[in-house]
Amino acid sequence: MSATAAAQPQHRGTVLPQPVRVADLVAALGGELVGDGEVRIQRIAPLDSADEQTVAFLASARYQVQLGQTQAACVIVAPAMREAASQRPALIVTPDSYLYFARLTQWWAARCRPAAPSGIHPSAAVAADVQVGPGVLIGAQAVVEPGAVLGEGAHIGALCHIGAGVEIGAHTRLAPNVVLMHGTRVGARCLLHSGVVVGADGFGFAPSAAGWVKIEQLGGVWIGDDVEIGANTCIDRGALDDTVIGSGVKLDNLIQIAHNVQIGERTAMAGCAAVAGSTRIGSGCTIGGAANIVGHISIADGVHVSAASLVMSSLTKPGHYTGVYPLEEHADWEKNAATLRRLHGLRERMRNLEKKIRP
Amino acid sequence: MSATAAAQPQHRGTVLPQPVRVADLVAALGGELVGDGEVRIQRIAPLDSADEQTVAFLASARYQVQLGQTQAACVIVAPAMREAASQRPALIVTPDSYLYFARLTQWWAARCRPAAPSGIHPSAAVAADVQVGPGVLIGAQAVVEPGAVLGEGAHIGALCHIGAGVEIGAHTRLAPNVVLMHGTRVGARCLLHSGVVVGADGFGFAPSAAGWVKIEQLGGVWIGDDVEIGANTCIDRGALDDTVIGSGVKLDNLIQIAHNVQIGERTAMAGCAAVAGSTRIGSGCTIGGAANIVGHISIADGVHVSAASLVMSSLTKPGHYTGVYPLEEHADWEKNAATLRRLHGLRERMRNLEKKIRP
Amino acid sequence: MSATAAAQPQHRGTVLPQPVRVADLVAALGGELVGDGEVRIQRIAPLDSADEQTVAFLASARYQVQLGQTQAACVIVAPAMREAASQRPALIVTPDSYLYFARLTQWWAARCRPAAPSGIHPSAAVAADVQVGPGVLIGAQAVVEPGAVLGEGAHIGALCHIGAGVEIGAHTRLAPNVVLMHGTRVGARCLLHSGVVVGADGFGFAPSAAGWVKIEQLGGVWIGDDVEIGANTCIDRGALDDTVIGSGVKLDNLIQIAHNVQIGERTAMAGCAAVAGSTRIGSGCTIGGAANIVGHISIADGVHVSAASLVMSSLTKPGHYTGVYPLEEHADWEKNAATLRRLHGLRERMRNLEKKIRP
Repeated sequence: MSATAAAQPQHRGTVLPQPVRVADLVAALGGELVGDGEVRIQRIAPLDSADEQTVAFLASARYQVQLGQTQAACVIVAPAMREAASQRPALIVTPDSYLYFARLTQWWAARCRPAAPSGIHPSAAVAADVQVGPGVLIGAQAVVEPGAVLGEGAHIGALCHIGAGVEIGAHTRLAPNVVLMHGTRVGARCLLHSGVVVGADGFGFAPSAAGWVKIEQLGGVWIGDDVEIGANTCIDRGALDDTVIGSGVKLDNLIQIAHNVQIGERTAMAGCAAVAGSTRIGSGCTIGGAANIVGHISIADGVHVSAASLVMSSLTKPGHYTGVYPLEEHADWEKNAATLRRLHGLRERMRNLEKKIRP
Repeated sequence: MSATAAAQPQHRGTVLPQPVRVADLVAALGGELVGDGEVRIQRIAPLDSADEQTVAFLASARYQVQLGQTQAACVIVAPAMREAASQRPALIVTPDSYLYFARLTQWWAARCRPAAPSGIHPSAAVAADVQVGPGVLIGAQAVVEPGAVLGEGAHIGALCHIGAGVEIGAHTRLAPNVVLMHGTRVGARCLLHSGVVVGADGFGFAPSAAGWVKIEQLGGVWIGDDVEIGANTCIDRGALDDTVIGSGVKLDNLIQIAHNVQIGERTAMAGCAAVAGSTRIGSGCTIGGAANIVGHISIADGVHVSAASLVMSSLTKPGHYTGVYPLEEHADWEKNAATLRRLHGLRERMRNLEKKIRP
Repeated sequence: MSATAAAQPQHRGTVLPQPVRVADLVAALGGELVGDGEVRIQRIAPLDSADEQTVAFLASARYQVQLGQTQAACVIVAPAMREAASQRPALIVTPDSYLYFARLTQWWAARCRPAAPSGIHPSAAVAADVQVGPGVLIGAQAVVEPGAVLGEGAHIGALCHIGAGVEIGAHTRLAPNVVLMHGTRVGARCLLHSGVVVGADGFGFAPSAAGWVKIEQLGGVWIGDDVEIGANTCIDRGALDDTVIGSGVKLDNLIQIAHNVQIGERTAMAGCAAVAGSTRIGSGCTIGGAANIVGHISIADGVHVSAASLVMSSLTKPGHYTGVYPLEEHADWEKNAATLRRLHGLRERMRNLEKKIRP
């Protein structure tokens, strides 16, 4: 049995406990029903592994060829794909099939995941004066320090550490093993994944003859509403002011946000990106995976930085920026990289040639 | 006392509780004994810090000069080094000295490390219906959610979180502070280091006028047998299908594996590497440290990517690929990098010159 | 309310419980008092958000313009700025205003942070034979394995795991959720942030026909005095010898230090940097964020590596080194990067032209 075959179980969050009619999906989520609304759906899957009980979606006309091969009972498509998809038993036609799919996954998750019970696990260590809103869950072995405030319906996963005076907004969820240090405030409806550390000290030292002298980090961290933070991502506390993560920001895994960074609303950063201290990033930006942004600069709204690029100075205009050495076979790279080290000299030689030839 | 001197204690896992004869090592692990099999060994060390009770190994003929200087009582060497090493009291001659050394470290560890006791620590929070195989260890403060299945001899370190329904194969070991979210299946004989997070949500959002709309991640993670995963590495759950880590894969620390990635058997990735969503990597590949691989591409079997290189498109042929800006003194870099920004123009100028000269 | 406005609370560690006189600050920390020593101070803030109860500092003459706009009651300045700052009610004049500020933050933190109580939290799991010095704190849910030695005044945060036989020096503090594996020794006055993993196995495998064969990592980790280690940073145990972090070293977040690396005293590394196995880094170096250093090389004292640069071979001279592809607008990058793949050919064409023209 190959790894790939073994990895497709008939359970998991993709199978509903009970089948539903396509008409029920449309009633719940909208869209135009084409075909047989009585078709029963129990699975959600990509087009190429769909069966006769599956709802799937076509993200883009690029994958249109899959429509002819899929077994899906129902496909979510854009209006332009209505004809191409017409052989499936049922269609849901909607202007933005990807957005519809996103909402469908939320509908699905609400039915497939057991509701987390509220209450405080007896093994949790919760200080006496913690403010616990209605419907709060505190998982096993969690630690909540004095003065913390947990909004209505907040979920604190097992083994989390909530520092003194930390404020967590309503319906915000922390996966197991999250650390929020004192001075952290998190808004409503956020989702923080395991291993996230918010409010560790920023990296600040003054040089002296006797070595580095620590600058105590006296600020905090302010996180807006609807923010998602990926596993093992770090957001440091500010030196004097707060580090600020705007509402609607989405951060992937293993990201480093240094002290006093400010990230504008709805900016998204992919895994392993890093932002150095005091840099301000605008709203609506996308930062590619493993991209790095140096400290003390400003990035305008609507900037898109490619993966693995380094931003070394402020970007004042929206646009798409890249700085990546292109991949080559190693032997070619050796020759080109060696030449690159002499590139300035090559330019000088070019100038000399041009002078000789022009006259 | 310098740091380096202080760092060479006379305890640790490199010193056996009792000396052994070289003949005993050969009896246990094979190889050809040359010299005095009665020589007693109690330490294992590199050639340059070996003493008269030490077994060491010569990894490659490149380090042959160390043979003349070492105090080692016994050296593991390849047949070609037999003469060069003949002044040591004992030799173990074996076709692959590095592989022999690997097996010797395993033999050593089994004797130097106290056997972990089995049983469930009284402070652990283990759901009533967890299936606990014979010889299972669950460490202090660990949390095991309902429906989890722990195979024979599995070790769950202190402060680990094992999500609902997670399956862990026989003799798999989790260091302290590992998180496995629901929907994770891990094979047999795996080793997961501290801070590993498996099954956090993949990074998936649909854009909308009101901001990013979350795509609930309904898939899981499937990890084969004999997989090692380094500290603070993250493997996200799939969106619909599983993320798949093939048997025999070795992942170093701080690696990011995004949702729906598939990694073929025995591929090894060094620290801080990252693979974006839905990419398939073949078997027997090596990915250098801090290398990045973009999403939705395929990497053939037997591909080797250099450290810090970015793979931006599919690689269909085995080979060694590199994409790294070569390091320079900063002043040189400033000149060359400035020229690089005008490289295309330089090429145009070259064309013009060539046209002028050819006729 | 904008995110930024919301992020400036009137509490946090920047506000003293009681105001102090500027004369008291000078009495405690030195410097020359200019102006009215009776001025009362209760906040510490940057110049641009200072009010009439605030002490601020001018880091460099570059920001001199802010002196004319600030409301700060007291400003810490270098002697050259004495005149420019003379309109503020009080000045503290000191040769190194940044260093003075660092010391002031330490003075401040001692007054604003509640003293952590000593003692062992009842929920901690501490082996019977652990050596606990006077004034030691062990936080909630922490796990301390047999044989560990905790020096005077050491603080073990909540949910930490201290492995068997680990030694922790006096007044060293571990934030919540730190893992120190067996074989780790940490000096005095260190600070380890949340998510740090010290002593996970180095990444060592011997290739064989049957796949990778693990090299058991039998060494440990030795960390000197006054070391700070950022959140989610990993320091692997050595294969045979110890991995060594010299005294006064400062490591930021999400850094990877592989097995048998040696880092010299007072070297500082910014976030997401990585050092591969067996490399030796000198003292007094600075390594930029996300910089990578390959294995088995040596870096001299006093080397400075720019952010995101890859060091591929030993650096024997102090200096500033860089290797970064410069950022461009994507369309420009596409043209220049395509030319870069043919750079060696371009150089050949240059040679040909030069030959034709010279005669």
